[in-house]
Amino acid sequence: MKHRFENHDLMTEACGQFVDITDDVLGVVERSGVREGQVVVYSPHTTCAVLINELEDGFIQDFLELMDEIAPREGRSYRHDLHDGEEFPNGHSHVRTALLSSTSQTIPVVDAKPMLGTYQRVFFCELDRARQRKVFIQVTGE
Amino acid sequence: MKHRFENHDLMTEACGQFVDITDDVLGVVERSGVREGQVVVYSPHTTCAVLINELEDGFIQDFLELMDEIAPREGRSYRHDLHDGEEFPNGHSHVRTALLSSTSQTIPVVDAKPMLGTYQRVFFCELDRARQRKVFIQVTGE
Amino acid sequence: MKHRFENHDLMTEACGQFVDITDDVLGVVERSGVREGQVVVYSPHTTCAVLINELEDGFIQDFLELMDEIAPREGRSYRHDLHDGEEFPNGHSHVRTALLSSTSQTIPVVDAKPMLGTYQRVFFCELDRARQRKVFIQVTGE
Repeated sequence: MKHRFENHDLMTEACGQFVDITDDVLGVVERSGVREGQVVVYSPHTTCAVLINELEDGFIQDFLELMDEIAPREGRSYRHDLHDGEEFPNGHSHVRTALLSSTSQTIPVVDAKPMLGTYQRVFFCELDRARQRKVFIQVTGE
Repeated sequence: MKHRFENHDLMTEACGQFVDITDDVLGVVERSGVREGQVVVYSPHTTCAVLINELEDGFIQDFLELMDEIAPREGRSYRHDLHDGEEFPNGHSHVRTALLSSTSQTIPVVDAKPMLGTYQRVFFCELDRARQRKVFIQVTGE
Repeated sequence: MKHRFENHDLMTEACGQFVDITDDVLGVVERSGVREGQVVVYSPHTTCAVLINELEDGFIQDFLELMDEIAPREGRSYRHDLHDGEEFPNGHSHVRTALLSSTSQTIPVVDAKPMLGTYQRVFFCELDRARQRKVFIQVTGE
């Protein structure tokens, strides 16, 4: 069995940023030498998500607008912000992360390629504020 | 390590259709010869989801009603539909897909069987219109 | 390839309970002897979810409040409850489970440790009532 694990550091810029990490994923699969197996893309944070969708700005804005409606930053009170003592209240970020519950994505690897569809891109989604982040990319197989 | 990958073609019929693909999953696991490992069920599309739940029409209608409330097709405007130039506006489909964020499901395989619970069925969910679709089923293990 | 599969039985206490199963996950990884691979945490139920987030009561209450708004137990009618004939109506539980669509979580294992972030805990979430439950924890790798 072959195994390759890489941490890629990111500096996000704002709440709601979708960072396209598809090329990161392709790079790790290539360096792994795995022909048949899986790639797991994992966020070790509690206020981020890993999503697969189309890279299209209109969609991303539509989605962020819906998140703002469902779990707004302003105009809704979060118990987390009372108890947490954090300098930057992020109760909305935790609730959004739980609702999406996308800590990771798993993609099959076949003939040394991740089997992403034509329009699929892999995104690291910042649901908190601009922060230093990590994304773990792991390939296993043969 | 054993590895089996199959693409199953589907023709969906309407937005909100839940296609029960449990037998497809069981078939690939059987043909794989894998006794201990995992099966990954993956949608290569940006407006579909793979869900595990009960096959019960009432639940499915309840769920679609909620989706219609959260991200309605009519009565809410989507930037995606303005920029996309698609013949068939599907901004609601992209937003629903991102909210569910279920591009794939992973199920343990033990003693050559996927460890689905008594009431669990695997569904390919069409969140767009009737379209030609693919679902990738991959089994790895020993 | 090494493989270890364990079922852990749980008795949940109420709808909305977050059971912290992080120590269960750590234990199975340790007993597996796997140094490089993955751990899959899988719920075989149709009204539960497996989530990864912070163990902080304020956040958990915020999240449950949002679930109560999106798919309330009282004050919204569910077709599932009409057709199902169950003694305990749980249409809201099925809808919540589908919305979260977190039947499982996959976590990379590196140097014999699951790569959870500093604040990440693994939760088994009861979205139905107090019930006898199972959670499957499977480690594969080398």
